[in-house]
Amino acid sequence: MVEVTLPDGRKIECDPATTTPYSVARSISKGLASRVVVALVNGQLSAINKPIKDISSLTLLDFDNDDAKRCFWWTTSIIMARSALIHFGEGAIVTAHTSTLTNNALHDGCHIDMYLPADRTINEADIKSIHTIMSKLIQSDKPFTTRQLTIQEALNMFKDNIYYTQQLNTMMEDGKKHEYVNVVDFDGFVTLDVGLPTMPSSGHIKAFDLVRNSSVVGTIPTMASLQRLVGVSFPDKEQMTAWKDLQHQAAQLDHRHIGRDQQLFFFHPYSPGSCFFLPLGTRIYNRLHSFLRSEYRKRGYEEVITPNIYSQRLWETSGHWQNYKDNMFSFQCDHTNYSLKPMNCPGHCLMFSHRARSYKELPLRIADFGVLHRNETHGSLTGLTRVRRFQQDDAHIFCTTAQIRSEIKACLDFMQHVYGIFGFTFSLELSTRPTPFLGDVAVWDAAEQSLESVLNEFSPGAWRMNPGDGAFYGPKIDIHIKDANGKSHQCATIQLDFQLPIRFKLEYASEQGVAERPVMVHRAIFGSTERMMAILIEHTKGKWPFWISPRQVFVASVTSGPYDQYAQTVRDRLFDAGYHVDIDVSDKTIKKKLRDAITDRYNYMIVIGKEEQDNQTISIRHRDTSEQKTLTIDQFLIELKHQTDNYL
Amino acid sequence: MVEVTLPDGRKIECDPATTTPYSVARSISKGLASRVVVALVNGQLSAINKPIKDISSLTLLDFDNDDAKRCFWWTTSIIMARSALIHFGEGAIVTAHTSTLTNNALHDGCHIDMYLPADRTINEADIKSIHTIMSKLIQSDKPFTTRQLTIQEALNMFKDNIYYTQQLNTMMEDGKKHEYVNVVDFDGFVTLDVGLPTMPSSGHIKAFDLVRNSSVVGTIPTMASLQRLVGVSFPDKEQMTAWKDLQHQAAQLDHRHIGRDQQLFFFHPYSPGSCFFLPLGTRIYNRLHSFLRSEYRKRGYEEVITPNIYSQRLWETSGHWQNYKDNMFSFQCDHTNYSLKPMNCPGHCLMFSHRARSYKELPLRIADFGVLHRNETHGSLTGLTRVRRFQQDDAHIFCTTAQIRSEIKACLDFMQHVYGIFGFTFSLELSTRPTPFLGDVAVWDAAEQSLESVLNEFSPGAWRMNPGDGAFYGPKIDIHIKDANGKSHQCATIQLDFQLPIRFKLEYASEQGVAERPVMVHRAIFGSTERMMAILIEHTKGKWPFWISPRQVFVASVTSGPYDQYAQTVRDRLFDAGYHVDIDVSDKTIKKKLRDAITDRYNYMIVIGKEEQDNQTISIRHRDTSEQKTLTIDQFLIELKHQTDNYL
Repeated sequence: MVEVTLPDGRKIECDPATTTPYSVARSISKGLASRVVVALVNGQLSAINKPIKDISSLTLLDFDNDDAKRCFWWTTSIIMARSALIHFGEGAIVTAHTSTLTNNALHDGCHIDMYLPADRTINEADIKSIHTIMSKLIQSDKPFTTRQLTIQEALNMFKDNIYYTQQLNTMMEDGKKHEYVNVVDFDGFVTLDVGLPTMPSSGHIKAFDLVRNSSVVGTIPTMASLQRLVGVSFPDKEQMTAWKDLQHQAAQLDHRHIGRDQQLFFFHPYSPGSCFFLPLGTRIYNRLHSFLRSEYRKRGYEEVITPNIYSQRLWETSGHWQNYKDNMFSFQCDHTNYSLKPMNCPGHCLMFSHRARSYKELPLRIADFGVLHRNETHGSLTGLTRVRRFQQDDAHIFCTTAQIRSEIKACLDFMQHVYGIFGFTFSLELSTRPTPFLGDVAVWDAAEQSLESVLNEFSPGAWRMNPGDGAFYGPKIDIHIKDANGKSHQCATIQLDFQLPIRFKLEYASEQGVAERPVMVHRAIFGSTERMMAILIEHTKGKWPFWISPRQVFVASVTSGPYDQYAQTVRDRLFDAGYHVDIDVSDKTIKKKLRDAITDRYNYMIVIGKEEQDNQTISIRHRDTSEQKTLTIDQFLIELKHQTDNYL
Repeated sequence: MVEVTLPDGRKIECDPATTTPYSVARSISKGLASRVVVALVNGQLSAINKPIKDISSLTLLDFDNDDAKRCFWWTTSIIMARSALIHFGEGAIVTAHTSTLTNNALHDGCHIDMYLPADRTINEADIKSIHTIMSKLIQSDKPFTTRQLTIQEALNMFKDNIYYTQQLNTMMEDGKKHEYVNVVDFDGFVTLDVGLPTMPSSGHIKAFDLVRNSSVVGTIPTMASLQRLVGVSFPDKEQMTAWKDLQHQAAQLDHRHIGRDQQLFFFHPYSPGSCFFLPLGTRIYNRLHSFLRSEYRKRGYEEVITPNIYSQRLWETSGHWQNYKDNMFSFQCDHTNYSLKPMNCPGHCLMFSHRARSYKELPLRIADFGVLHRNETHGSLTGLTRVRRFQQDDAHIFCTTAQIRSEIKACLDFMQHVYGIFGFTFSLELSTRPTPFLGDVAVWDAAEQSLESVLNEFSPGAWRMNPGDGAFYGPKIDIHIKDANGKSHQCATIQLDFQLPIRFKLEYASEQGVAERPVMVHRAIFGSTERMMAILIEHTKGKWPFWISPRQVFVASVTSGPYDQYAQTVRDRLFDAGYHVDIDVSDKTIKKKLRDAITDRYNYMIVIGKEEQDNQTISIRHRDTSEQKTLTIDQFLIELKHQTDNYL
């Protein structure tokens, strides 16, 4: 007798004479047998139809288990691959297929990558056809079989598949550990066994869907343009339905969905990771910057504009060439390398040092909205949250050691003000001197004490210490915000830097006329404007606060004709005052006009009819409160001004 | 007897028995002999000390003649080269030296390019030392001699000079036309004869100066970083003095001089052709854009933000890859080429086509201040007038053929409004269908007729026709502005484009539901913001009009102490109203404070003393009129508002 662990954790004794995990499960109950996906036999994953020998422990896993999910989706990916090859026929090659398990159930499932001849891409009709083929293969409940080949036999078998050949070659070079490989055969499609057992047959897949497709870039230059098809599957139809509901809800909240819905931005394959901001998106983007510009003015920052490309010599000085080269886009010019800037700091160091500086100029706060580029991998690009091109609300403060405390305090105040406006809560962490570090222990100690005392004053008892977690160039304060959906993001950063001032030999003349080295503070509140837009879209669910709204006021006449002129006057008065106002004096019904305006999420909807015209008033309805009231234009303008005054 | 032409054009008969041009001149008059630089003997340039044979005509040229200038400065460049080599010693190589003659006397003279070991650059002390050595070489009146070598002998002689070797190799490959070369020897420094006679000896250089130095990029990768030293010389001291005066006057007006003086911007060798705009320069730069943004709002343009990098496939579609590749900075990413955008139009085409378009959306006016890069050669880069990195007040109008007329009219009105504000006058030219051209003759004809009728209406009789001078993709209107110094610039552009809409397959649904192709209008008023800043700096001579001034108001207390608080109140009131205000309540004398403020060109200087404090007024002095008056803060704020209202 051996101990069998059931999916719910219960343990029972069982007769090992029953020969497969499935039959053991069946011997316990029919329900259990139908739920078991895969088994752990003596701690090793095993297919449920595989005979078991020398058994000492057996654990039955159902779909709630992560390994079971992997096996189930791995199985599904094989069926997808087979179906896609049937559909595309001659010349199509499956270069990879796999299950995907992340910390977000909505991204889980499986996918296949394919090379298609003649730059073919996947379209709706393809997906429909592949879906049909998969359904048939599942209905006919075809078996999966496994067999062993020598590496040489496998190389022969996969000789037309350069991706598989590469894997096999790597295995061969890998210290001769692999003389044999296992392959899985399904309906004549043979693939490399990756160590995940399959379901016994395709009939176990009770529900599946093909979710989306995309182009991805493969690692082999001659066959780099690949087509990815993503699917998901479940052992019962209810889970599929639940997943679809969840998917739908999340999609409604996803910034990409809202961005498309509100016509804010789009992406194009000719520039992956670089966003096209449409007029309405640009209004928000520019408003975020103009808001910060007004804060910069109040808080003693000066904006500058700096180059976007710099020669290798700058990056060598800053250390980026040695440590960050692969993340920069570089090209040849004047017989040397130039790179697109991934950050503004080195350029700001040149600006600091381009002429002699005096202590009287410190603290010097330089802000820059410059365009930055980082070479993120194609596969990692995600909407506005992971891009290659972005701008930051970046600023660097050059100050004396004695000024650190007050500058950091001011940074925290600034951040609190901005986050308060958006309604984000935040938490703070202080990361201190790591090993190894650069610079002087005494300087570090003094700086850390400054930061600690600032944090104690700013947020007594409410910040965390992360000892030894600072950057090698200086201690830093990490800030995490929480949005309206409970999601956590790291956007703001406040970092001291003792290192760049040394590398760039930055100096100022002290009051005594002695050359001193300034400290540099890196700080941002939004971080990337692109990413902050994604966060704000999801945080507001597209219901933009008035001051930043791309569609602020909608003016409609109750009927076309008699009130058009007054409606136009109202629109002009509001537009001239600087607001985003649209007007509809068409012959659509007022009901239809308002329905459209609600869909477009205007903050205010104004209706103009006989009464309004006669009294020279306007009837106003607010998007969120649905409160309705009648005001004169002047009264309304005062009300609007109150809502924007703080953000100018 | 032969006919001798004197420098002033007079002709006389002369005895050819006298054996050099110089002796002929001497035989005419001592004054003439002292002025002659070079001669034309039978139409060929000849040194004035070279014996003449078989003479049929002789023309004596003095320094007023361009060829004479070339010879004179070529001679000077040899002395410079010799002196620099003496100064720098072992390892320094002169890679080129030449005379320079342009259409601007201020740029004329000569220069030498040198390779210096170990990345050495030229500094002030070097220039001083080279100057001293030159003076000595000139004082000792050393001769120039010429001799002939075989190419092989020359190759041996110049074997350490890769630039000269390359020239000689090119000569050898050049169809064996050159078996021999002439070399010039001066004080042991030997250089290739370029066909320009030298002066007989260094003593002829009566006045010279070393003007400036710079780093330049040579054509040979292993020796690409070169140091250039620029000089100028004259046959008498008066011309040198006159040149220096002129140079000084021009320098005062040069945007680079004013830009440095007013701390507006600087350049750095780590990013040639990309400007660093300092805080005060950024204020102007941003103000130019915010002004246009307010005009865009009034005129129905919508701003967008588009990517800075695009894959080769975009540029192939637009035609840039075929025709403009060398002007773009390109790099590898995802196994394909990406280029930094040199213009916004292709990106705007993608934006137009990213979803279905209706006639109701036309005209669609898309404005973009995106950062552009063009790979101008290192040597051609000049301050803000020729850069590699710039932004444009770029917009594209997508419209129907029927809308061309009104759109072009609106473009001209817009331009006239903006240029009027800056005080530029302008002239207009219509360039029509060239050969070859793209598109349909009937469409061209209709479009040209539209443009003609618009121009006739806008500027009757005051525009010029340039038949056949349009771009191959459409007719255009060229606009030339004239600045306050009488200089002419081409900034604005209005171009019709029938071609890009075809290449990008742009379509909209007409009122009848038929797919129609839009026309595209490229338009800009400033053109490059960088270049417009250069023009405005020289146009205003740094005396910025109030609305765009980076230093608007200066507040000073007559003495430090008693009035500081009221002065601060005044400063705060003005600052809070959005103006650029600085304050000086130091213990400097009021005279010194005002002198500094005048140097810094504040538009208004406010003095606060006892009387002002007692009466709660301010004493105001205007930069340009020197008019003085006393107002309350509120009165002054109203006055300021009048000056900015039109540019919001």
